[in-house]
Amino acid sequence: MGMIGGGLSSFIGIVHRIASYTGEEYKLVGGAFDTDYDRALEFANKLELDPSRTYPNIDTFVEKELELPEEERIEAVVVVTPNFLHYPMAKQLIQAGFNVICEKPVTNTAAEAVELEELVNKHKVVFALTHTYTGYPMVRQMKSMIAEGVIGKLHKVDAQYYQGWINPVIHDPEKRKTVWRLDPAKAGQSCCMGDIGVHAFNMIEYTTGLKTERVLADLNTLYADNPLDIDGTALLRLDNDIRGIVRASQIATAEENRLTIAVYGDKGGLRWEQENPNYLYYMPEGGVAQVLKPGHEYNSDFAKISTRMAPGHPEGIFDSMANLYLGAAKAIRGEAYMDGAFPGIRDGVRGMKFIEAVLASANNGNVWTEIVD
Amino acid sequence: MGMIGGGLSSFIGIVHRIASYTGEEYKLVGGAFDTDYDRALEFANKLELDPSRTYPNIDTFVEKELELPEEERIEAVVVVTPNFLHYPMAKQLIQAGFNVICEKPVTNTAAEAVELEELVNKHKVVFALTHTYTGYPMVRQMKSMIAEGVIGKLHKVDAQYYQGWINPVIHDPEKRKTVWRLDPAKAGQSCCMGDIGVHAFNMIEYTTGLKTERVLADLNTLYADNPLDIDGTALLRLDNDIRGIVRASQIATAEENRLTIAVYGDKGGLRWEQENPNYLYYMPEGGVAQVLKPGHEYNSDFAKISTRMAPGHPEGIFDSMANLYLGAAKAIRGEAYMDGAFPGIRDGVRGMKFIEAVLASANNGNVWTEIVD
Amino acid sequence: MGMIGGGLSSFIGIVHRIASYTGEEYKLVGGAFDTDYDRALEFANKLELDPSRTYPNIDTFVEKELELPEEERIEAVVVVTPNFLHYPMAKQLIQAGFNVICEKPVTNTAAEAVELEELVNKHKVVFALTHTYTGYPMVRQMKSMIAEGVIGKLHKVDAQYYQGWINPVIHDPEKRKTVWRLDPAKAGQSCCMGDIGVHAFNMIEYTTGLKTERVLADLNTLYADNPLDIDGTALLRLDNDIRGIVRASQIATAEENRLTIAVYGDKGGLRWEQENPNYLYYMPEGGVAQVLKPGHEYNSDFAKISTRMAPGHPEGIFDSMANLYLGAAKAIRGEAYMDGAFPGIRDGVRGMKFIEAVLASANNGNVWTEIVD
Amino acid sequence: MGMIGGGLSSFIGIVHRIASYTGEEYKLVGGAFDTDYDRALEFANKLELDPSRTYPNIDTFVEKELELPEEERIEAVVVVTPNFLHYPMAKQLIQAGFNVICEKPVTNTAAEAVELEELVNKHKVVFALTHTYTGYPMVRQMKSMIAEGVIGKLHKVDAQYYQGWINPVIHDPEKRKTVWRLDPAKAGQSCCMGDIGVHAFNMIEYTTGLKTERVLADLNTLYADNPLDIDGTALLRLDNDIRGIVRASQIATAEENRLTIAVYGDKGGLRWEQENPNYLYYMPEGGVAQVLKPGHEYNSDFAKISTRMAPGHPEGIFDSMANLYLGAAKAIRGEAYMDGAFPGIRDGVRGMKFIEAVLASANNGNVWTEIVD
Repeated sequence: MGMIGGGLSSFIGIVHRIASYTGEEYKLVGGAFDTDYDRALEFANKLELDPSRTYPNIDTFVEKELELPEEERIEAVVVVTPNFLHYPMAKQLIQAGFNVICEKPVTNTAAEAVELEELVNKHKVVFALTHTYTGYPMVRQMKSMIAEGVIGKLHKVDAQYYQGWINPVIHDPEKRKTVWRLDPAKAGQSCCMGDIGVHAFNMIEYTTGLKTERVLADLNTLYADNPLDIDGTALLRLDNDIRGIVRASQIATAEENRLTIAVYGDKGGLRWEQENPNYLYYMPEGGVAQVLKPGHEYNSDFAKISTRMAPGHPEGIFDSMANLYLGAAKAIRGEAYMDGAFPGIRDGVRGMKFIEAVLASANNGNVWTEIVD
Repeated sequence: MGMIGGGLSSFIGIVHRIASYTGEEYKLVGGAFDTDYDRALEFANKLELDPSRTYPNIDTFVEKELELPEEERIEAVVVVTPNFLHYPMAKQLIQAGFNVICEKPVTNTAAEAVELEELVNKHKVVFALTHTYTGYPMVRQMKSMIAEGVIGKLHKVDAQYYQGWINPVIHDPEKRKTVWRLDPAKAGQSCCMGDIGVHAFNMIEYTTGLKTERVLADLNTLYADNPLDIDGTALLRLDNDIRGIVRASQIATAEENRLTIAVYGDKGGLRWEQENPNYLYYMPEGGVAQVLKPGHEYNSDFAKISTRMAPGHPEGIFDSMANLYLGAAKAIRGEAYMDGAFPGIRDGVRGMKFIEAVLASANNGNVWTEIVD
Repeated sequence: MGMIGGGLSSFIGIVHRIASYTGEEYKLVGGAFDTDYDRALEFANKLELDPSRTYPNIDTFVEKELELPEEERIEAVVVVTPNFLHYPMAKQLIQAGFNVICEKPVTNTAAEAVELEELVNKHKVVFALTHTYTGYPMVRQMKSMIAEGVIGKLHKVDAQYYQGWINPVIHDPEKRKTVWRLDPAKAGQSCCMGDIGVHAFNMIEYTTGLKTERVLADLNTLYADNPLDIDGTALLRLDNDIRGIVRASQIATAEENRLTIAVYGDKGGLRWEQENPNYLYYMPEGGVAQVLKPGHEYNSDFAKISTRMAPGHPEGIFDSMANLYLGAAKAIRGEAYMDGAFPGIRDGVRGMKFIEAVLASANNGNVWTEIVD
Repeated sequence: MGMIGGGLSSFIGIVHRIASYTGEEYKLVGGAFDTDYDRALEFANKLELDPSRTYPNIDTFVEKELELPEEERIEAVVVVTPNFLHYPMAKQLIQAGFNVICEKPVTNTAAEAVELEELVNKHKVVFALTHTYTGYPMVRQMKSMIAEGVIGKLHKVDAQYYQGWINPVIHDPEKRKTVWRLDPAKAGQSCCMGDIGVHAFNMIEYTTGLKTERVLADLNTLYADNPLDIDGTALLRLDNDIRGIVRASQIATAEENRLTIAVYGDKGGLRWEQENPNYLYYMPEGGVAQVLKPGHEYNSDFAKISTRMAPGHPEGIFDSMANLYLGAAKAIRGEAYMDGAFPGIRDGVRGMKFIEAVLASANNGNVWTEIVD
């Protein structure tokens, strides 16, 4: 496994490394860890990596690795660079035939995501997009139960992603100028919807298997000089006129990372919360409410392979991410495995189209806007 | 205290009687309890009430009570008839000079509510509308904290009222025809928003003190032959462009009575859930999350007078309703008491205008619709 | 219904009055409310009671009420005097043929409780002891499920009653002298075990139907000059060598009223907490954990008649107490009703014997001590 | 890092490997992974380890590694063999000068633990005992707060460790014979207290810094032919006559891994539960209850260095174990770090003495039994 970005100054790199270690399927052997080559080498030294495979940049990475015989060559490359570089780097790697594990957001625009999708298909590589929360065992249990019809025909979905982290800086005109997530050049077209709303959207499509046909969105920048949304609500029409809601906020003051989803069908309801990821609430119509937890026999095979420990030993977010890495590893090796074991470029395309439709709806006076696929 | 409706066949009557007993401020002495006079007398006998003050109808009630000297006359009349009768009966009672405690919805239309408001002001009677949930001590604590500025300048409010009770009947064309709440003649213009969405709306305006300026709403009847909404979402613009959301559903399968509210300001957030009413979650910006409970010295005076027991002895919904009765009693006797001690005709007017704006928005293609006051 | 004690200066009186009102089975008509007769009359006036049935003391109460024809005479008398008076007053009332509803503790000693039991049997009156927590619908559901064998053969019971109220006063030698519950003359032989440990004990015997054969107890007064226990643990041997634990404390700092019980059998476990009384956790062996709530069809008949509202409308401690009053009313009228609908003199005898065995064990060096019945 | 045991057939090995990877301080380079050397080699191959450092047994491991120059030699050896081998293997490794990371229980007897302690001191090696739960950030926050006096002078501690895993097998005479934990030859002197009660005990001494002076214990084997305890309660006298309770059970049917601890002092109380490890409940005397979570600035330095992610991103049991590995790594390298960063041989000695005192108390008729240190 190689890595682009993720060096000493990276926060997210460690998450990916832990995830890759946990399943014991990957070994980090090289990469272009830093734009500062000395720091890249320092990083490699700290991790006791071979300095000859620590490259100054992605071009050299690609060039040198391709010179190696295939069995020695890095199989999968993790892209954990700043957001705006995901697209060009992923493109370059795919075109060179590398399997790619890419941080979110996949691209800056939906068109770029579509382009990547075509390239992935053409070059027949594995592309994993780390929508981390899809790796939790109880999210997978939820997906299994919905697919098996446990809650019947769906008619209502409500997902929320509330954080409060931007509150301390947003009210001060000087401070808010310094936040990279509020700078369109670095963060892209959207702050709140692009960063977290899309997780809630992905969670809906991932667990239900439904597709969103159109959205009506209302976004809030709170201050006129702030160019990007920091709060918003999107009404969704899913397949068969099923109603959905995506609520996202970065000014839900002092909320930490409150991603929740509730799905209701004619036979029951399901609720899950990211901050207590090991509890899945199942409410059968007319029956007693149930609380499912990981590690039990009653779970689906998909949920079961996503847990390492016995019941009551809480696993967390690294373990969730590790499940995505494990799924991607199986795909890279061509082993049969579970459907939905990792989000791919398709999820990336859907997410970017959602974001663009949300922005279009909000900018056009909160009108219904199609997501054309 | 007298009562119109609430006899043997009434479910809601007992709630009002318990509430009236709890504060020991009222004594039920008579009423027009039933359209079937024999059953009314049977009811009076069961409660050991004076049969001479058990009247066959509201006309006789008003006529005979007005013949009594003022000090013997019934001071307050509880209206717990079917919904469509609230307006004419409340009107008749107000015009006759009675104080009125009225079940929700106050009227069938906003125009009627406005008319009642004028009559209440003209006849200088007390009019209490039993938005039950405003009586919980921790809701009142929330109101106090927001008023005191504890969470600073507000910027986001999200209220939910999810129930699943209509799911078992809605999917069957025959069954759904038999539900009175889905019959416009009996239930009025709206099912879900009128019955529960308006509670969520009232909770927002009650706790924050803000007014809603306009709404954009999306309603769902689920089936074409069902005339009334059973699910809906309304986006709100409150004063100063503050964003709010009201989410209501009666097809949130197997949910019981999940009314929740979250309010976020620049100094903190507050969360409350009706099903666990004795816990108020306060999240100060940058501080440790707190859980406030009734019966403690740290609560506001308003919260304190709304609790009867020491901490850890849970009070419930009857006690919440009893607090409204207590507040109304104080007003009827002209005693100084707490602001907001009971919802009045103003809340009724606001609620009806909200419902009508929501319906207009939904029927006009989900457009922003003003609430003109 | 009459009342001894419970006047203006009483805190507990209101709890009993609300409980008696709620079921609409009782009407307070007279009593000896206060040792100060003027205050008693003031109280009667406030509640609009007939002053001729407001008596200066229990002797007059008994004398005058017995002069009335039986159909006019007070049927049931509530005893809410200070603890040390429960025994003599209950005795006098029973001997005069009144049904009695008595606050806890029933007596000062086990011998007195046994004496009352003989008198209750001899005079064929109803005697209800207000172990309030046995009235909660989910406690009754627990009792029903255990009786039906849902969790199989029991092998382990663990009950806790932790409060922290005495912490603010116990550490100061002057302050602790002023606490009546720490004065043996007023509080009896025990503070913590007598006041709250016995509730936990009663909860065990009530829900499981098992009897405790012996105890080994460890008590703590914390300071040498404090004569009564404020913390303690008792190990229990129930029928068939089943193990139980009663843990009680009044120095569990800042705990409010944390009474909990967990019961484990070979087919499952059950857990309940008084501070969230509307949730019963049922953990079937090998199955999915369940959360039962009041108001549902799936509950036992006993639980169902103990709830007034639809699911999701929380009832609280007054409603629990009201269920005891309702049960006693049925018994007084000789109507068939539910077993266990109110705790009686048998519970009082068991409780006092438990307390005395606990004290004996603790005082004799923490040895096993029989409860002889 | 090397490992004794932990090969293909080991469950616990993966936990230790993930823990060692997470902090990026260790690299597994060799070991004696299996008594079956072929399987050991297969395991090494799977993990791409150097087969020349995969040894057939611990003797060879020690011999060959000592032949290597010190800078190449394995620094730390993880012992994850069956319980009865911990002592001889740890002893051999310590005597050979290796740092040891050892699974629990440290030894079979207290005497052996004392012997290891002497050897650790003599050979000046680092010895880490993986009491996993001490690595959770909120446990460390609890320890910090108690040490800082936040809850004042302690007077009560209550720890529980309830599991139900043995219930499905214990009731069948044939099945229970097959459980290795019930076989004294394999499991040692105690099942429940030795396996989990000692965790609860360790949690008490770890968080409070207090020492237990004596215990009175009651154990239960449930069936006469079952030689080992599967349930038990121990009353504790800690320093200064402070009362403690350890409750442990493996027949708390359908409980998963419910380790909880509550500590009460004169200024407040603290509660923590292993199944929701990211919530620490702090109840200040007279104040509002607080809920502390990882990742916040308000936490102690010790808690802060024990978290990798931002608030709201739940970490779990692997991350807790990783914190112990990190602490041991710092000690091995002689770097200054946090007190209590990993449990050591002292904890092992205390734990074994606790177990032996508990057994002595139970076997001698539930009498107080000293823990002599």
